[in-house]
Amino acid sequence: MAERFSGVHWMLATPFKEDESLDTGSIPNLMDKAKQSGCRGVVCLGVTGEVARMTDRERSLVVKAVVENSDGLPVTVGTTAAGTAAAVENSLEAEKLGAAAVMVSAPVMGKPNDNALFTHYARIADAVSIPIVVQDYPRTSGVNMSPEFIARLADNIPAAQYLKLEDPPTPPKISAIRKLIGDKMGIFGGLGGVFLLEELARGSAGAMTGFAYPEALVEICRHMAEGDQAAAERVFNKHLSLMIFEFQEGIGVAIRKYALHSRGLIDYPKVRAPGPGVTQETQNEFHRLVKVAGL
Amino acid sequence: MAERFSGVHWMLATPFKEDESLDTGSIPNLMDKAKQSGCRGVVCLGVTGEVARMTDRERSLVVKAVVENSDGLPVTVGTTAAGTAAAVENSLEAEKLGAAAVMVSAPVMGKPNDNALFTHYARIADAVSIPIVVQDYPRTSGVNMSPEFIARLADNIPAAQYLKLEDPPTPPKISAIRKLIGDKMGIFGGLGGVFLLEELARGSAGAMTGFAYPEALVEICRHMAEGDQAAAERVFNKHLSLMIFEFQEGIGVAIRKYALHSRGLIDYPKVRAPGPGVTQETQNEFHRLVKVAGL
Amino acid sequence: MAERFSGVHWMLATPFKEDESLDTGSIPNLMDKAKQSGCRGVVCLGVTGEVARMTDRERSLVVKAVVENSDGLPVTVGTTAAGTAAAVENSLEAEKLGAAAVMVSAPVMGKPNDNALFTHYARIADAVSIPIVVQDYPRTSGVNMSPEFIARLADNIPAAQYLKLEDPPTPPKISAIRKLIGDKMGIFGGLGGVFLLEELARGSAGAMTGFAYPEALVEICRHMAEGDQAAAERVFNKHLSLMIFEFQEGIGVAIRKYALHSRGLIDYPKVRAPGPGVTQETQNEFHRLVKVAGL
Amino acid sequence: MAERFSGVHWMLATPFKEDESLDTGSIPNLMDKAKQSGCRGVVCLGVTGEVARMTDRERSLVVKAVVENSDGLPVTVGTTAAGTAAAVENSLEAEKLGAAAVMVSAPVMGKPNDNALFTHYARIADAVSIPIVVQDYPRTSGVNMSPEFIARLADNIPAAQYLKLEDPPTPPKISAIRKLIGDKMGIFGGLGGVFLLEELARGSAGAMTGFAYPEALVEICRHMAEGDQAAAERVFNKHLSLMIFEFQEGIGVAIRKYALHSRGLIDYPKVRAPGPGVTQETQNEFHRLVKVAGL
Repeated sequence: MAERFSGVHWMLATPFKEDESLDTGSIPNLMDKAKQSGCRGVVCLGVTGEVARMTDRERSLVVKAVVENSDGLPVTVGTTAAGTAAAVENSLEAEKLGAAAVMVSAPVMGKPNDNALFTHYARIADAVSIPIVVQDYPRTSGVNMSPEFIARLADNIPAAQYLKLEDPPTPPKISAIRKLIGDKMGIFGGLGGVFLLEELARGSAGAMTGFAYPEALVEICRHMAEGDQAAAERVFNKHLSLMIFEFQEGIGVAIRKYALHSRGLIDYPKVRAPGPGVTQETQNEFHRLVKVAGL
Repeated sequence: MAERFSGVHWMLATPFKEDESLDTGSIPNLMDKAKQSGCRGVVCLGVTGEVARMTDRERSLVVKAVVENSDGLPVTVGTTAAGTAAAVENSLEAEKLGAAAVMVSAPVMGKPNDNALFTHYARIADAVSIPIVVQDYPRTSGVNMSPEFIARLADNIPAAQYLKLEDPPTPPKISAIRKLIGDKMGIFGGLGGVFLLEELARGSAGAMTGFAYPEALVEICRHMAEGDQAAAERVFNKHLSLMIFEFQEGIGVAIRKYALHSRGLIDYPKVRAPGPGVTQETQNEFHRLVKVAGL
Repeated sequence: MAERFSGVHWMLATPFKEDESLDTGSIPNLMDKAKQSGCRGVVCLGVTGEVARMTDRERSLVVKAVVENSDGLPVTVGTTAAGTAAAVENSLEAEKLGAAAVMVSAPVMGKPNDNALFTHYARIADAVSIPIVVQDYPRTSGVNMSPEFIARLADNIPAAQYLKLEDPPTPPKISAIRKLIGDKMGIFGGLGGVFLLEELARGSAGAMTGFAYPEALVEICRHMAEGDQAAAERVFNKHLSLMIFEFQEGIGVAIRKYALHSRGLIDYPKVRAPGPGVTQETQNEFHRLVKVAGL
Repeated sequence: MAERFSGVHWMLATPFKEDESLDTGSIPNLMDKAKQSGCRGVVCLGVTGEVARMTDRERSLVVKAVVENSDGLPVTVGTTAAGTAAAVENSLEAEKLGAAAVMVSAPVMGKPNDNALFTHYARIADAVSIPIVVQDYPRTSGVNMSPEFIARLADNIPAAQYLKLEDPPTPPKISAIRKLIGDKMGIFGGLGGVFLLEELARGSAGAMTGFAYPEALVEICRHMAEGDQAAAERVFNKHLSLMIFEFQEGIGVAIRKYALHSRGLIDYPKVRAPGPGVTQETQNEFHRLVKVAGL
């Protein structure tokens, strides 16, 4: 049986060339970084991966390239879809291609409907034999999951082993969920890692996020696991201004890709249209923050 | 050169079997209905077609089946995507498969951005050699297009020949747009046909909508084209309660498919999960309205 | 003890003069119309009443004028507020001024929270001794109330005697609620009366809506109460195109006020800025529909 | 003529007692803090002031108490309203009570409409003789203002002297606006101060925000004005984890009031229902961050 997920699972950007075509050639670099940084897993085809702007064929190519370069590092694949049938099909393909887990956000629904949402997850769980990471990200999905609903998933769908919690304020929601289901689900923070310290202190298992300096997140998680909150805080505070800057609403993916490119991890900082790019001034701001952080 | 679109272009539901798999076998029936009813075109892979709940492969299969059964009736294909590159790829494939036009809604964007949206349409226009139906449907896209922006599309992108206007109130918006660009774009109403009379009187070219009784829409358009508004009103009012019922927010596609199934046009009324179904009571309401309308 | 609400409770527009100041002088006309039409009550300070664009002082003036002209007709007063304390204060004042009931929509909340919403209603119920009309209108409030939540209100807050249901599709929601709580709450439709027939057939007690021809709604309710659905349908279908036209999204209140003005019921059709007005073309469309309907 | 606004204008929380009634008695403390901290102004009745949960009468009481305790510090009063007439009335009253400026956000509008919005601001400017702070906060208003629209305000409405910019990403938007209008408007950041450094570097005039430690914001602005960005960064980074924590989405006002209460600035940390409170765990997290920051 697979080891339970914990620590940092790095959300992978999807590299594109200048002409916006897929750049699978940069994926090995990203995977090397994940492994060298001490990440315990990677997640591809999430919001950071610009999954919504890709075709099905491109998604498969990304999963293949990531798995091929994983060297045993668990790969979670985003298989969210607006319909259950498509989410099932995506999930089956991900499993076939070697995914260790699938990550599934709520589909956009005309009306919130807990029963329909429960059935959505149950059907995916029936189809695959790998765990599901339930993504709770109302800003993108428009769907709010109450702690009670999450507990219902945990209690009735054994495959629903993990929660990627991105419904702020996250620290009190972690406590509310854990009060209902204890440790039944492994909870991971996201949102750029901005509340990682509080989340870990409240009992989260780690972070699934795409901060361009995953080694910092790993170090924070390690210090917290060792009970050294003060050390964790030092690392956290050293990187915080950069984390905040990178996670800027409306331009976050573009800054992140610029950062990855600056670090030599992807060949082009390209974001697919109609996503935004970064201007020279934003680039300068980034480099200043890197310098101030001593990186 | 192709004749300019006018009249009724019927929005096609995508037929699914009881297990939610694609039922291309029902597509010939739908196409026969379109032709027999006097529709001047059909549109597949729109919101009525549950396009968001389909995989790319299934979308191609639907386009093929529709084109194969078109007998020369122009087929418009919905190729909307969250990214420009994918919208271009969808559009190129649609053209290759025989589409007469592509219908493209605004992509979901973090921030409204007229320039990015303009470029989105311009890149699609550069890629294909068939006309674009610009879909203005803010409820689904979250993007508002001002009359000025639509005029900018019309004035600068020759392929942007048609507008599917679903931004209520539609009659005054038709007038506002026509004041800016005259007849440069052919404007089609949608929204279940509920404002079809006012739209035609304001200068729309017809309707692109999926009402299960397209022959009624055709008759209304014909009477209006002949200048007989009173006759158009008689047909309209006879069907109005059914149009309103079918277009019910939150359940419209399900009622429409039930209606199509009741008319023998599709083998199953199935809507893909997590979409809603219709209960026995809703079915009874539908049948009563059909009877009251004398259909 | 007061008789239980049923039938048509007319939603009152708030009359403004050309300079947008309050025109209480038109309120007696509106009240006469309500009484002559056979309405069983009126509701002031709802969305139709442009309540959001008024000051507290103006709201009080409207309540006073309405109650003074009520001649015993029950007056329901909209007392919705973003905070519980303000909703309580508004409700207490309404009761003091002679309201028969208060209508309260969910406050806008950062996150949906059933417990906070329940407490909101409970505190209002504790403060006043008149019934509460719970308004379920997610398009305006952004808050979705499940049938289970509505049943919780009905079961635990005796003052929560009525529901104004404007969460489409309304007919199945009426059935879902009645399955849980039977007749415990009197359910009223809204939404311009567009689904009034189905709502009554599903067990609604009537309508709270502002259609400019309330006598038609009264006649429909009467026929349905007498079991003559066919007669109800005849009246309904005669007025339907006008109801749909008046209820047009984005411009409904303006058309309604123009209609009320055309009928001589208010001195000015003025809508407060930044609300829209109606152009000459829209006015012409309205008059044509009136003529076609034979009114 | 009044000096042009710059530096820190502190957004004031509205103090409430345990029973949610207004606690004007705590206002002198807040004003003393503003003055002692070097703030150049205060802003009352904004989102931080829970203005939406207050009655008109309470709003007047707050303005009076703030002005009475201002000792010449300029007081900006939030006078946002859903209708133009009410915004004008609020603004006139604010001026009469001694406000130095009014802050006005876009009203919630069914459809974005630049012309209607322009007229809204123009009518307010016509009515009052004090400057307007245009608040650009789409998360609350639902209205997006393009740099071009803001330039149109600046060019045509002399009273529109200031912009409170809370539309992320704020740094590039500052540059885009300044490219159009140079220094014509004084631009202030908000959003808890989280991007204060970049905003100042891009040419903002200061911050209008409610961080519970305004002295830190003042120090940052001072260092930047003196050209010592490194010193500004040291102060900023020392407080950043606390700023982020306090600005937590969904619970920010509650944490801020807890912080103000902990500092002895308000007698009760009470947030009006249905706003959230803070649990013991959140309080502990706050105190730890204070300690880590060395405050």
